[in-house]
Amino acid sequence: MKKREKISEAVIKRLPIYYHCLKWLENDGITRVSSNIISGMLNVTASQVRQDFSNFGEFGQQGYGYDVAFLKNQIAAILGLDKRYNVIVIGAGRIGEALASYKGFKNEGFDFIAAFDIDTKGRDMIGDVPLYHYDKLEEFAKDNRIDIAVIAIPAESCKEVAAFIKKLDIKSIWNFAPVFLYMGEDIAVENINMSESLFMLVYKANNLIKEK
Amino acid sequence: MKKREKISEAVIKRLPIYYHCLKWLENDGITRVSSNIISGMLNVTASQVRQDFSNFGEFGQQGYGYDVAFLKNQIAAILGLDKRYNVIVIGAGRIGEALASYKGFKNEGFDFIAAFDIDTKGRDMIGDVPLYHYDKLEEFAKDNRIDIAVIAIPAESCKEVAAFIKKLDIKSIWNFAPVFLYMGEDIAVENINMSESLFMLVYKANNLIKEK
Repeated sequence: MKKREKISEAVIKRLPIYYHCLKWLENDGITRVSSNIISGMLNVTASQVRQDFSNFGEFGQQGYGYDVAFLKNQIAAILGLDKRYNVIVIGAGRIGEALASYKGFKNEGFDFIAAFDIDTKGRDMIGDVPLYHYDKLEEFAKDNRIDIAVIAIPAESCKEVAAFIKKLDIKSIWNFAPVFLYMGEDIAVENINMSESLFMLVYKANNLIKEK
Repeated sequence: MKKREKISEAVIKRLPIYYHCLKWLENDGITRVSSNIISGMLNVTASQVRQDFSNFGEFGQQGYGYDVAFLKNQIAAILGLDKRYNVIVIGAGRIGEALASYKGFKNEGFDFIAAFDIDTKGRDMIGDVPLYHYDKLEEFAKDNRIDIAVIAIPAESCKEVAAFIKKLDIKSIWNFAPVFLYMGEDIAVENINMSESLFMLVYKANNLIKEK
């Protein structure tokens, strides 16, 4: 993976989208694809697609296109999706529950191994995932490798829980609390705000109507 | 809004992120901000921030920064967030339920006015949102303005439901089904795949560890 250092941040941000697009194509039994098709699916220009894909050691052939499986595997390796990751969910409310019980993540390499809440409401499972009292988290972290912690709790407790995650030496936080979390250089954070994609949708729709 | 035509697609994609960042700052009582602070929060270079913001008729002053409220309102107007939108949810499973009952959307201008499912399981509300049988959707659409339909159903039925949404003349689809939906030029679609941000998180974490 010597190439990795050369790939710019802007390209890296498009990799997850390309990866999914290639997976969709593969699931539909498509083995080769043109930059024009990918451009149409993803709202990226065809020349941008060609330029980006040239980073992964794959060059499309005129009238023949790109090898879907090859590209998908190259991108998976760059992103680190050739490994599996252990995930815990903190907060067993509606969002935590939806995430813990979503079956699709396993297929992508993410194993949801436990969920935690300060009030388990008498439940001991969410779908197939064991649910424990939050007090058990420290002990659980000693006995299990945890790659990613999902925060799905109200804003008030978010920073306190994040500090505890750091203490447990967990290196990645997927944050669904409506708080912008920044943990310095030691911990990777993705702050999720569902509204952002709603905003984009509204913009697209308003511009559709105007074009008529 | 004469400026709109000049703003490139690449900049538009960053607007929802800037908008949220500015809202966070505003909520924290911050009235002016430097491009460096925004750069640090958002993983965008400071020069990119300055270049982007120059599109919205706002130029930062050396040692004084940008006016948070002014910028936020400019971006809201470009995105169309100075209006309110009526939203329905199709599918009252875990994801549909989490979305319909999330209180934050109202604050962003999105009113979730109804949810529909082929099996309501005896419920008539999800949180504050009325839940109806899917058979009632056509009638409901005659009596109510629907701006956005959220699809939160399994993959199998997604395309059929999307075709029905089109027939009802709803112009925007927020798709959570694990299917890539493309509806042509008449309907705006945002296909949500939660795994994409997990992929990005994994990439960030792998690169943190490598840098050590």
